[in-house]
Amino acid sequence: MARIPYKTYLSESELPKQWYNLRADMKEKHDPFLNPGTLKRLTAEEMYPIFCEELVKLEMDDTTEYFDIPEEVQEYYRTFRPSPLVRAYNLEKALDTPAKIYFKFEGNNTSGSHKLNAAAPMAYYAKKQGLKSLTTETGAGQWGTALSMACAYFGIDLTVYMVKVSYEQKPFRKGVIETYGAKIIPSPSDTTEAGRAILAKDPNTGGSLGCAISEAIEASLRDKDCRYALGSVLNQVLLFQSVIGLESKIALEKLGEYPDVVVGCAGGGSNLGGLIAPFMKDKLQGKVNTRFVAVEPASCPSFTRGKYAYDFCDTARITPLAKMYTLGSNFIPSPNHAGGLRYHGMSPVLSKLYHDGYMEAISAEQTKVFEAAVKFAQVEQILPAPESAHAIYGAIQEALKCKESGEAKTILFGLTGTGYFDLKAYMQYNEGAMDDYIPTDEDLQKGFEGLPKIDGNVI
Amino acid sequence: MARIPYKTYLSESELPKQWYNLRADMKEKHDPFLNPGTLKRLTAEEMYPIFCEELVKLEMDDTTEYFDIPEEVQEYYRTFRPSPLVRAYNLEKALDTPAKIYFKFEGNNTSGSHKLNAAAPMAYYAKKQGLKSLTTETGAGQWGTALSMACAYFGIDLTVYMVKVSYEQKPFRKGVIETYGAKIIPSPSDTTEAGRAILAKDPNTGGSLGCAISEAIEASLRDKDCRYALGSVLNQVLLFQSVIGLESKIALEKLGEYPDVVVGCAGGGSNLGGLIAPFMKDKLQGKVNTRFVAVEPASCPSFTRGKYAYDFCDTARITPLAKMYTLGSNFIPSPNHAGGLRYHGMSPVLSKLYHDGYMEAISAEQTKVFEAAVKFAQVEQILPAPESAHAIYGAIQEALKCKESGEAKTILFGLTGTGYFDLKAYMQYNEGAMDDYIPTDEDLQKGFEGLPKIDGNVI
Repeated sequence: MARIPYKTYLSESELPKQWYNLRADMKEKHDPFLNPGTLKRLTAEEMYPIFCEELVKLEMDDTTEYFDIPEEVQEYYRTFRPSPLVRAYNLEKALDTPAKIYFKFEGNNTSGSHKLNAAAPMAYYAKKQGLKSLTTETGAGQWGTALSMACAYFGIDLTVYMVKVSYEQKPFRKGVIETYGAKIIPSPSDTTEAGRAILAKDPNTGGSLGCAISEAIEASLRDKDCRYALGSVLNQVLLFQSVIGLESKIALEKLGEYPDVVVGCAGGGSNLGGLIAPFMKDKLQGKVNTRFVAVEPASCPSFTRGKYAYDFCDTARITPLAKMYTLGSNFIPSPNHAGGLRYHGMSPVLSKLYHDGYMEAISAEQTKVFEAAVKFAQVEQILPAPESAHAIYGAIQEALKCKESGEAKTILFGLTGTGYFDLKAYMQYNEGAMDDYIPTDEDLQKGFEGLPKIDGNVI
Repeated sequence: MARIPYKTYLSESELPKQWYNLRADMKEKHDPFLNPGTLKRLTAEEMYPIFCEELVKLEMDDTTEYFDIPEEVQEYYRTFRPSPLVRAYNLEKALDTPAKIYFKFEGNNTSGSHKLNAAAPMAYYAKKQGLKSLTTETGAGQWGTALSMACAYFGIDLTVYMVKVSYEQKPFRKGVIETYGAKIIPSPSDTTEAGRAILAKDPNTGGSLGCAISEAIEASLRDKDCRYALGSVLNQVLLFQSVIGLESKIALEKLGEYPDVVVGCAGGGSNLGGLIAPFMKDKLQGKVNTRFVAVEPASCPSFTRGKYAYDFCDTARITPLAKMYTLGSNFIPSPNHAGGLRYHGMSPVLSKLYHDGYMEAISAEQTKVFEAAVKFAQVEQILPAPESAHAIYGAIQEALKCKESGEAKTILFGLTGTGYFDLKAYMQYNEGAMDDYIPTDEDLQKGFEGLPKIDGNVI
C-alpha cells in the first residue's frame, strides 16, 4: 500500500484569508468578563489601557463570524505557514489500529509552536496603533519566543516575564528571546509590586502563569505607549488560532476526510480552541457528531477537577473576572514539564462548550505523557513538546479504542510544537526520574482560599 | 507587489526517485582513495569491514549517473521532505538589493539539518545487510541526532562519539540522541585505543571530528555485526544529499528561475555537494556559467588555506588516504561554534572541482557570521545553525555586490539547519564575547607534523 500523501501542504493561495469566530455560532454565549470592582460587564473602554484597541474590539465581538486577516499579517504568516497536515501512518502501524490518525503540526517555526499565529496580529495591531512596546508572560517559553519574533519583525519592543521554574528548566529560551531583541525577566521578580508581594509570601516559589500575567500587566500600565499581550485564554487568541482548524479542514477535505474525533492539549485553550473551531461550527449546527477531547495534565486539571466559576485570570487579582473552569487563581501548579499547560484557568469559550456538553476532557499523568511522546518521536520522527504530547496521549487512547472495537475512525489531533527546549524533561524521563504528582482535594481547595464570593458563585 | 510564493513545496509525487551522482559527469575524476599501508588504490573488499556493502558500491561508482532511491527510504524521506525553497523577500528588503535570494531550508526536522538525507539510507542498508548496529561520530550533533532517528526508525542500535567540546557546548544533544535509543560518548574517550592515545597526548583536548572518527571506526571493528557510518566527506554522502539540489532545481524551474550563484557552507562538504550537484552538472556540460561559492570558518579554512594533498580522514590515521584540501589530520581546530564545519579535510569531489576552477571559496570570521545569523533570524524569522549562517553570510556578500552593480542576480543558498541547540553561541554573541580566533601559518603547519610523505605530495 502506497502511504501517500504522508503530508498535505496547502498552497499559499489556499491559505485562509479570514479568521473564524466560533462564538458567532454559539447559540448560548459564554458569560461576559466582569469588572472585579463593580461586578458589572466589562466595557471596551475599561480594556483599552491594557490591550490594543483593535484587539479589544475583536475580544468583545461575539456575533461577527469572519474577520479579514490584514495583508501584512497574511504576509507574515507565509514565513511559517502553511503547516502540514500529517497522516501518522507510522504511529498507526505501531499501534496496530484500524483508525486513521492525522495531526496538524504547528511546530515547524523558530518559536516551536502554534503561538506565532496569535503573536503576529498582536504585534501588527500594536504597530498600527502607534504603540512602542508590549509586555507579556510566558510559561514554557514558546509564547514569549513567538511574540519576540513577531515584535522583531514589526518593530515593537518587548518585555517577557517568564515563569521562573520554566526559565530554569529551559535556560536557552533566554538566548533565543534576546536574539530577537526582547528583554526577559524570570517571574516572580522584584521589578513589580505584584512580583514583590508574591516573593514576600514565598521567596522560593517557582512562579506560575498567573503570577507572570500580574507582573506583565502591571509593567505595561506604567507606560502610555505600551500594552499587554496574552497568548492564550482570550477570545482574540482563539480567533487568531482558528487558522489551525481552517487549514486542517481544507486539507482533510482534499483527502476526502472528516474527523470523527478531534483531540487537543488544553492549558489556556489557545491551540485546542483554534483546532476545533470549524469542526465545532458543524457540530453546533447539528451537521456532525464529531467528538472533541481536551487532554490536560493530571497535575493541573482545570477541566476535569476545576470549578466552573468566575475567577481572576492572574494571581495578584488585577485582571477582569472570567467565567471559566478554574482551579482557583491562588493555585500554584507543581513544576511539571508542560509549562504551557500549567495554568489555573481555561478559555471561557471552551469552558462554556465543555459545560454545555459539546466537549469532553481527560487528564494524564506525566510519565504516561512522556511514554507517548517517546513512542511518537521514534516512529513519527518528530520530538514533540511536552504540551503537545498530551494530545498524542489522547489520540493514542482513541486509536486503541478503535483497535478494540475494530472501527476505522478518523482521528485528528493538534501537534502544537516541538520539544527542542524540553530536553531536561526528556532526560529526566529517560532516567526514570519523572515526577507524577497529582494534587489532592486539599491542594485544590487552596487555590480558592481568600477569593471573594461572586454572584452566588463558589469563589 | 504581492510577495508570492514565499515558499515552494514540491508535492510528494514530484520528489526525486533517484539520487544523482555528480562524479559521473566529471570529465576528470578525483584521485582514488588509497590504502595507507600499500599506497595502492583502495578496493571494495578492503572497505567491507568498515562500511555496509551497498554503501561501498555506491562509494566506488563514479560512472553511474542515477541510482534508484529504495521505496523504504523514499517512504522515510516523506516524514521530513519535501523541504521548502524559500524566497528571502524580507532579507532582500533589509539589504535593499536588486538580487533575488532563494534558500533551500533543510532544518525543519528533529535532527535540525539536512543530515537525515544521508542517515536514512545508511540505516536502511545496514538493516538490509542484516547488521545489528552502527557507530558514528558527530561534531555539532546534527549528524548524530539524524542517525539516531533513522536507526530508531529502521531498528538498528547506534553508538555516537561526539566531539567533546561540542558535547559541552550543546548539553541537550545527549537528551535527544538518547530519546532515540542511541548511546552517546564524548570523544576522545577512554573506550578506545585511539581515544586513550589522544588523551595521553593532551588530557584537556576538546577533541575534533578527526579524533571522533578514529574512535567510531575502532569501535565498529570490534563487532562483526557492526559497521561505521560517516555523515560527510564521502562520495556516498554527496550522492544521498543530491536530493537537496534536485528538489531545489525542480522548484526553481517552476518559478522560471535558474541560479547565477549558488552558495553553501563547507565543512566536510555534505550539504554543499548535494546542493550544487544538478547545477554543477549543467556547468560541467558547458550549459551555464553559474558560480559556486563555498563558505568556511576562518578558524578552520580547509579550502582557502589548506593543501591539496593525500591525507588521512581521521586523527589516529586508521582511515584510508583521500586526496583532498586538508589542514593536516593533526590539526585540532579552535572551539568555534560551527562544530559541523570543524573538520581538517574536505570532500574529494568538491576538492577536485575547486582545484579545477569550477568552484570558489571564501572564509568568514565568527563574529561576522553571527551578525549575518541574527539579521537573518530577525527578518526571515528562522534561527539558523552557526554552520548554516556561513552560507547566509556568503549570500549576503553576493547580494551586496548586486546592490553595488545594480544587477538583479538570482542567488541560491543552502540553509542547512536550525540553531536551537546553539543558544550558548548566540548568548555569547549577544554578550559581545565571541572569539574570532584565526590560526597563524605556524598553527597550520602543526596539522601536518609527523605525517608521512606520499607520492611526492606534501604530507
